[in-house]
Amino acid sequence: MTPATDPDRVYTAALLIIGDEILSGRTQDANLAYLAKWLGVQGIRLKEVRVVADDHAAIGDAVNALRNAYDYLFTTGGIGPTHDDITVDAIAAALGVDVIVHPAARAILEKYYGDKLTDARLRMARVPDGAELIENPRTGAPGIRYGNVFIMAGVPAITQGMLAALDGQLPGGKPVLSRTVAAWTAESAVAATLGAVEKANPGTQIGSYPFWREGRTGANFVIRATDPALLSACAAALLTALTDAGLDPVDGEL
Amino acid sequence: MTPATDPDRVYTAALLIIGDEILSGRTQDANLAYLAKWLGVQGIRLKEVRVVADDHAAIGDAVNALRNAYDYLFTTGGIGPTHDDITVDAIAAALGVDVIVHPAARAILEKYYGDKLTDARLRMARVPDGAELIENPRTGAPGIRYGNVFIMAGVPAITQGMLAALDGQLPGGKPVLSRTVAAWTAESAVAATLGAVEKANPGTQIGSYPFWREGRTGANFVIRATDPALLSACAAALLTALTDAGLDPVDGEL
Repeated sequence: MTPATDPDRVYTAALLIIGDEILSGRTQDANLAYLAKWLGVQGIRLKEVRVVADDHAAIGDAVNALRNAYDYLFTTGGIGPTHDDITVDAIAAALGVDVIVHPAARAILEKYYGDKLTDARLRMARVPDGAELIENPRTGAPGIRYGNVFIMAGVPAITQGMLAALDGQLPGGKPVLSRTVAAWTAESAVAATLGAVEKANPGTQIGSYPFWREGRTGANFVIRATDPALLSACAAALLTALTDAGLDPVDGEL
Repeated sequence: MTPATDPDRVYTAALLIIGDEILSGRTQDANLAYLAKWLGVQGIRLKEVRVVADDHAAIGDAVNALRNAYDYLFTTGGIGPTHDDITVDAIAAALGVDVIVHPAARAILEKYYGDKLTDARLRMARVPDGAELIENPRTGAPGIRYGNVFIMAGVPAITQGMLAALDGQLPGGKPVLSRTVAAWTAESAVAATLGAVEKANPGTQIGSYPFWREGRTGANFVIRATDPALLSACAAALLTALTDAGLDPVDGEL
């Protein structure tokens, strides 16, 4: 179940992406990056992502591993009306509960489809017994919450609407803040500098991300910390150290 | 170790994406879809993907779980010259072997960097003891192969070069073929049709992927099979069934 709010606690989350279309390379996932940023704003850290096929056992095993290892588990994909949408059944089996038609979900679909509410469409009102609904402002068919498991759509616009409905509702801790410093240099030329600055600034982490552009080599150095004062101090120290190394660093991203 | 070739065997692979920049949402992964398609051509099926942070234990646990569960494991990320590049150390620890400087990798870096081969750059010649190298046609620093584990770069252009060097080298089975049929319809309106056609065509799978465009609702139906005759028969049956349902289906993607 959802942990109580504690500002000094680190709240963690995992994402399970369900779908053959991602694993075949046909569809480029767009939910990971969006959810990661949304979680960041809530003060929750995305620690692990898994992608599995539309396969009962694979979904169930991943759900049980991830819901026990992290504070929150989000899933995307496989909750539509067609035969390949098996997420609800697989998760209910993993949770050890039955699948029922949720009365409020049925009412939403009746309102949305009117007299065109077929059996296939009614599949979208099926939930693990004991679940609550997550509002879907876009296409009606709701998302599903069961304890710390949040079952969401695969279509990014729908998922984003469901996340908007959860905005500010989930207990979280201090957001991880980030700031980027950059320079036109091979990262290997400043590797020792980066390591030394990180070591001299406890409570911060520096990630180094090289790029090749306009025929030149550059790197963005992303500093992360939960304390804004530590973040600023580390950024200032890194700018100074890169300048001392003979570079002309930028306070921002290249 | 690599399995022997057997055309009737299903060869499986997993991908482990390593990097805080993916989990923070800063960087959109581009390796999953590329690797998935590349594996498809080799007759190898991507069955699972995980994304973990730049964290020794998380990397090691995932590597051991995935290399034992699938025929091949590919990793991307964390093999550069900076302090946050810990993939080689974490994987060697997971494999229970030491990290050594590979003589051939050192020679490649000496040729690439000349007298600018610093200690930081020499980090890119470190491999788990017993590993082979994978050619990197772009930036010199090689990828690494240890048994069924393939350790690759995070930067997509570099990873793609390494995969090109492996083209046709890995035993695989029959590629999964796919064909798309589409219609301007809500997928929920044809859900029963899709399920019935799949059931009547054993050896095929139909995935349904809805979209909203130009103010209209449509869906692509992706049929997958290893047998080209079964694929064609299923596509023909689906086109007929959708036409019988009063739609004007397209033999292709919308």
